Amino acid sequence: MARYQDYPLSIYNSYNREKEIFTPLHEGHVGMYVCGPTVYSNVHLGNVRTFLTFDVLYRYLIHLGYKVRYVRNITDVGHLVDDVDEGEDKIAKKARLDNLEPMEVVQMYTNDFHNTLALFNFLSPSIEPTATGHIIEQIQMIEQILNNGFAYEVNGSVYFDVPKYQEAKGNYGQLSGRVLEDLISNTRELDGQDEKRSPLDFAIWKNADERHIMKWPSSWGIGFPGWHLECSAMSTKYLGKEFDIHGGGMDLKFPHHECEIAQSVAADGVAPVHYWMHSNMLTVNGQKMSKSLGNSFSPSELMTGNHHLLKKGYSPMTVRFFMLQSHYSSTLDFSNDALDAAEKGFRRLNNARKSLAKLSYLSGPMDEALNKEIQSSLNSAYLNLSDDLNTAKAIANLFDLATRINSMAGGKLKPGALSEGTFNRLKQEYEQIINDILGLRLEESDESGMMDGLMHLLIDIRQQARKNKDFATSDQIRDTLSALGVQLKDGPEGTSYSIE
Amino acid sequence: MARYQDYPLSIYNSYNREKEIFTPLHEGHVGMYVCGPTVYSNVHLGNVRTFLTFDVLYRYLIHLGYKVRYVRNITDVGHLVDDVDEGEDKIAKKARLDNLEPMEVVQMYTNDFHNTLALFNFLSPSIEPTATGHIIEQIQMIEQILNNGFAYEVNGSVYFDVPKYQEAKGNYGQLSGRVLEDLISNTRELDGQDEKRSPLDFAIWKNADERHIMKWPSSWGIGFPGWHLECSAMSTKYLGKEFDIHGGGMDLKFPHHECEIAQSVAADGVAPVHYWMHSNMLTVNGQKMSKSLGNSFSPSELMTGNHHLLKKGYSPMTVRFFMLQSHYSSTLDFSNDALDAAEKGFRRLNNARKSLAKLSYLSGPMDEALNKEIQSSLNSAYLNLSDDLNTAKAIANLFDLATRINSMAGGKLKPGALSEGTFNRLKQEYEQIINDILGLRLEESDESGMMDGLMHLLIDIRQQARKNKDFATSDQIRDTLSALGVQLKDGPEGTSYSIE
Repeated sequence: MARYQDYPLSIYNSYNREKEIFTPLHEGHVGMYVCGPTVYSNVHLGNVRTFLTFDVLYRYLIHLGYKVRYVRNITDVGHLVDDVDEGEDKIAKKARLDNLEPMEVVQMYTNDFHNTLALFNFLSPSIEPTATGHIIEQIQMIEQILNNGFAYEVNGSVYFDVPKYQEAKGNYGQLSGRVLEDLISNTRELDGQDEKRSPLDFAIWKNADERHIMKWPSSWGIGFPGWHLECSAMSTKYLGKEFDIHGGGMDLKFPHHECEIAQSVAADGVAPVHYWMHSNMLTVNGQKMSKSLGNSFSPSELMTGNHHLLKKGYSPMTVRFFMLQSHYSSTLDFSNDALDAAEKGFRRLNNARKSLAKLSYLSGPMDEALNKEIQSSLNSAYLNLSDDLNTAKAIANLFDLATRINSMAGGKLKPGALSEGTFNRLKQEYEQIINDILGLRLEESDESGMMDGLMHLLIDIRQQARKNKDFATSDQIRDTLSALGVQLKDGPEGTSYSIE
Repeated sequence: MARYQDYPLSIYNSYNREKEIFTPLHEGHVGMYVCGPTVYSNVHLGNVRTFLTFDVLYRYLIHLGYKVRYVRNITDVGHLVDDVDEGEDKIAKKARLDNLEPMEVVQMYTNDFHNTLALFNFLSPSIEPTATGHIIEQIQMIEQILNNGFAYEVNGSVYFDVPKYQEAKGNYGQLSGRVLEDLISNTRELDGQDEKRSPLDFAIWKNADERHIMKWPSSWGIGFPGWHLECSAMSTKYLGKEFDIHGGGMDLKFPHHECEIAQSVAADGVAPVHYWMHSNMLTVNGQKMSKSLGNSFSPSELMTGNHHLLKKGYSPMTVRFFMLQSHYSSTLDFSNDALDAAEKGFRRLNNARKSLAKLSYLSGPMDEALNKEIQSSLNSAYLNLSDDLNTAKAIANLFDLATRINSMAGGKLKPGALSEGTFNRLKQEYEQIINDILGLRLEESDESGMMDGLMHLLIDIRQQARKNKDFATSDQIRDTLSALGVQLKDGPEGTSYSIE
């Protein structure tokens, strides 16, 4: 029996606004699509949080026994400035400023994206398709939408006809909870809007003028696809016309995800996504994180502490742990105090897992109540993860278990108080939940912490040897260290060392 | 004055079979294209050597002051089994065997490729385009070739007409040194060859049957591009119809690179590449490396030593250093002895660079001859690198310099024997050549080596303390280590330790 039968997953479906039991289209298989980054600038922490939510979901689905195809795209063309259809393609603009070929910009920021995610211990998705790699598929989808009468061509551009779609299908606005009439009355007229029949219509193909570098031929002329289209075309190609889960940041609900639904329904006649999931935003000291407010920091600033709002740097796993201590659907507030607390909590968790790894089972008088408690905490951790991925509550269960593990490691509790089965389950699943599902690995800084520990021990021994006039030992220490490239420096406040 | 004017680069041009002074098309700029991997299996060491040659060339061109656009593609479709046009697409076949979507296979092996290259400290190219991402550009190129009369369509496939091309242009075979008549007489008839007018013709578009998963629409029907085409289409797109350098493994000369030239000339009327460069093969104990001979090992087997032909494992930088000790155009033979020697040599080089980093200039009586010698060794290193990238000779220059650096570090030679300018040049350029150009970084294993050194020192001290019945010290060592997670184990052959 697969684990997903023991701990059936429920998901808050943004489309229906309620928690639903997750039932995949094909038993045992899950298709999942997540909107990836637009690679025209460095990844920011909000992106990291969004992708973290779906990294943990991906890990958990695999752990539950599902075979998962996880598609996360790279937007390397077509995202227009200010999220409106007019204006310059963001990537082409950046390229001209830097005097680079657009694909050089794409390469640079794709590398940055991958490096940052690797730092935070993300799994690679199954497929990472690019928008420029699927122009043909996008053109085919435009043709379908045109053939079905839900789009129209003007001067080499093709627009999606929202009012006509709404009349026929009626679900535009359902995901984001918007009413068409309100949207229309709130729309300001922008340059070039005159090609559109309604201000709500959006481009699915844009005619390219000479200034555009990224453009392709089509039956409507030279141009490029609208931003919303790539996700519809690529999710259909790799996951089918209908698939299980679509995720992204809250800010993508409208217009992006709303348009995705409309495009797929207009092309294929079916709603593409069974479960929509949206990850919430980051705030800093209670304020929205934004570059213009000066309170937005990059992953590397967070590591180094090199930002005026940060007291110090935090390791990638501390930040990961910090983010997982909130439920993905809540806003998450960054503050030095909250990060310090997370650092402390994460150290406690790591100490427990290291202690547990060293413990061996020895039979002894069994404590029934304790057995039940341990089993129930482990079950709760899974049930919480299965309850719309409640990592915050699952971590609380891990802390309960840490208390018991520490008692065992400290000798107050014998491993024999547990049945062998309970002990082995604890030993295996505690590490699995932390490492495999939450993706919290032990960090290498543990190694330099160990080196520091060894050095202090040696300095201490050398001090005593000198006090005892055992110069053979004190010289041996100094000479061996020097050969290893470590220099000792004796000063009024004791001995320090430096590695060269 | 840019450094490339001080040390003008010469390149052995495979096309003309002679060493030529390198003159880029646009002063100060270099466009370089290298055939990347086909991502249907793990990277092997032969690939690593080829890409290493061009990684060092890329680094050196940048160091010389050129602005370089380096394009290295990913072949994710279209490479047919056995390098003939008939048969199954390699990637589609692997996908069906694994019951995977082809793009999942592509993602898996692209990740493997990137991880392996990162291990060996490769720089990312400026652009890494994929074949599937450039189907439109390939279709456009086929149209041009058809319009110019150098291809013909049969049953939804398009073939390049080699005899007709040869009659008009006369250069087919020039790169690989083959004569058309010999090629024809050596060609066996294969299945499906009947569509071709000549056995030398090659597919630039293949009709896809139902079994094919990777296929796209075109005006000749549903199909996929021939393998040779992607490099022509992508080099033209990102570097122009004519560009400076095209590199690849020796085994790609024919038919791949020969076909690339023919395609570009047939489409655009100009020979695309000014300098062709080919990297030579790897052998093992004198034999060709091949999976069927069982003498082929993967990068990870080489690291771990987990292969019957390897005595032990070697670090990635040792392997990189080993490969750079041969000129790229020579075959390179792997043997335990050669790798051991490289490991020793590399350690000597690293010791010199570490010593040099610690030296400070102090004025003293100057030694004119020594000054000249140091300046001349540094000049030689550059001249050797500029002489068709002779890394082997440049490394010999570095060893000469290591001798002098060691004398200074050992106190036999005062840094003041050099003029301050010579000393500073040595200090800067020695590290630049090793680190920036040859890409040989200091390895982290240095840190675990240090930890190991500290542990042996502590075990030694504890041993003596126990001999002297100084149990306070021996207990202090054991307890502190245990708190740090290090367990000591006393056995008949001495004390060992393990980290938990």
